[in-house]
Amino acid sequence: MRQRIAVLGAGSWGTVLATVLVENGHDVRLWARRESQAEEISQHHTNEKYLPGINLPETLSATSSLAEALAECDVVVFVVPSHSVRETARQVKPLLLTKTLIVHAAKGFELNTWKRMSEVLTEELGAPFQDRITVLSGPSHAEEVIKKCPTTVVVASPQQTVAEKIQMIFMNRYLRVYTNPDVVGVEVGGALKNIIALASGLADGLQFGDNARAALITRGLAEIARLGSAMGAEPITFAGLAGVGDLVVTCTSKHSRNWRAGHMLSQGKKLNEILEEMQMVVEGVKTTKAAHYLKQQFHVEMPIAEQLYLVLFENKDPEQAVKELMSRGRTKELEEIVQGW
Amino acid sequence: MRQRIAVLGAGSWGTVLATVLVENGHDVRLWARRESQAEEISQHHTNEKYLPGINLPETLSATSSLAEALAECDVVVFVVPSHSVRETARQVKPLLLTKTLIVHAAKGFELNTWKRMSEVLTEELGAPFQDRITVLSGPSHAEEVIKKCPTTVVVASPQQTVAEKIQMIFMNRYLRVYTNPDVVGVEVGGALKNIIALASGLADGLQFGDNARAALITRGLAEIARLGSAMGAEPITFAGLAGVGDLVVTCTSKHSRNWRAGHMLSQGKKLNEILEEMQMVVEGVKTTKAAHYLKQQFHVEMPIAEQLYLVLFENKDPEQAVKELMSRGRTKELEEIVQGW
Repeated sequence: MRQRIAVLGAGSWGTVLATVLVENGHDVRLWARRESQAEEISQHHTNEKYLPGINLPETLSATSSLAEALAECDVVVFVVPSHSVRETARQVKPLLLTKTLIVHAAKGFELNTWKRMSEVLTEELGAPFQDRITVLSGPSHAEEVIKKCPTTVVVASPQQTVAEKIQMIFMNRYLRVYTNPDVVGVEVGGALKNIIALASGLADGLQFGDNARAALITRGLAEIARLGSAMGAEPITFAGLAGVGDLVVTCTSKHSRNWRAGHMLSQGKKLNEILEEMQMVVEGVKTTKAAHYLKQQFHVEMPIAEQLYLVLFENKDPEQAVKELMSRGRTKELEEIVQGW
Repeated sequence: MRQRIAVLGAGSWGTVLATVLVENGHDVRLWARRESQAEEISQHHTNEKYLPGINLPETLSATSSLAEALAECDVVVFVVPSHSVRETARQVKPLLLTKTLIVHAAKGFELNTWKRMSEVLTEELGAPFQDRITVLSGPSHAEEVIKKCPTTVVVASPQQTVAEKIQMIFMNRYLRVYTNPDVVGVEVGGALKNIIALASGLADGLQFGDNARAALITRGLAEIARLGSAMGAEPITFAGLAGVGDLVVTCTSKHSRNWRAGHMLSQGKKLNEILEEMQMVVEGVKTTKAAHYLKQQFHVEMPIAEQLYLVLFENKDPEQAVKELMSRGRTKELEEIVQGW
């Protein structure tokens, strides 16, 4: 059934999700913060900053007016960076119909409160929306989805019927959508993998090789599962698309901006130079801070996140950090993995 | 303590493991089937077929005489292809001391019997050796270990003291060795990942992209864990180095010959042409046959292995096979993953 859908955020992933929805036959409005970007998308059918060289559908219209984007809509998809979710939700709330379903695809924790995005959304939109907030995640580089490369994602909601409605609107022949009841696991997996991607970029930049990267991914998965389980996630979720799947694609693909930031770090660049040069949000940097806090709150070990924290925020030598990771502590494998799984 | 160690098999991994042991100060004899190869290693300190351009230690000596290799040895490391393990074990048995410890690094099942390598070794060496057989596995491309890139592996034995002895002889500053009591899990993970690597090479060759490869790895891990658990493995082992770790490195690295074989398959080459051109053992081809048998015996679903079986042995069109994988069955993620974990 044709739905009226507002997609909030015209970065690469927001623009691509809006395009998917247009191609699936829905009535879509894409909200861009900047008027000039909305015009570029509506009139020139391009979004050069985020999707260089890509022609967008002529039927995809964008607006910089939230009221216009949200008018009468059945579904709202938040694809703004994690640090903008609360403020955007605040502006959105008075414009929502009570029947509207909410999806978010923001991968991170809120700065300083370290809350998950669905918690932030529930706080701002109010309790009646709690059961209609879903999270969309998984191994899905926007640059490939726009080219219709086969992609799988997961939509999580404790309400199976809500998850299935969202599944229906996104699913098509190149985008396969799974449902999962574990919102916490899907959110935690999506956020924390960016830390391991930064570390992988760092290790790759230091020429540590594929064996070391595989070790980092394996042990990264274990520490993600440890924290996630302590926060209430189903451990098995981390064996799925929002865990292993997203972790692998983010740590091994040239499209990943977190990997690229880690790679620049290995070349001796400082954090502020990297963020300036990339001109895009690097979620993994904030998430490393979040992990530094959350691991203390939930009493779990996260050696990779901790070493990366020292590199990013306390000027530790990256090579020394990776070396310490490779030579630390336990040598019984199951002891190292099993806590949390 | 300096040990006398025979390494059987002078392919890339056997040669590199022998080199590691020499560098760790042990008295090592590398056994090569062909006299000319043994001479090349002992006299020219090279093994051009398997490790082109690499200089081996001058103190690494090779022999084509099993009796010479095995004389008085404390540890025997089998690094022959899986199809040669039984025959080699048969020849080795009369030359063994009763105190000798056995390690194997062969990743596959025996053709037609579909037994694991430690089962084959126990049958041939006899019951007294059962508790002294360990398996070494994990994400470890030989080409990187020889360059001292940081690498992690796992040594599995139900006897922790035996595993620790083997851990001691291999561990050094660039090779980190973990122990794990789950022999079945480590063997099954090491064998089955080659199927997923073939499928990944196929998908990559068809330009399906990084998202699709991540989906394949995630769902591949689930089917490996399903079969492994049915065979008696600890599910958690598949979250470790011999599961996720080895799977990731084999599916994403240019060094992987299984990935390369899958890639050639995508370009329209036939199986026999590929095997001829590569001139090396491609374990994944036989393992696909093994999975075809084992999934029936243990009543588990293995859709990736099954599609690959059809491509390899029944001339199914590779593109069609990958497309079917991306569009099949269940869409509740946990139902798909959880059986077995």
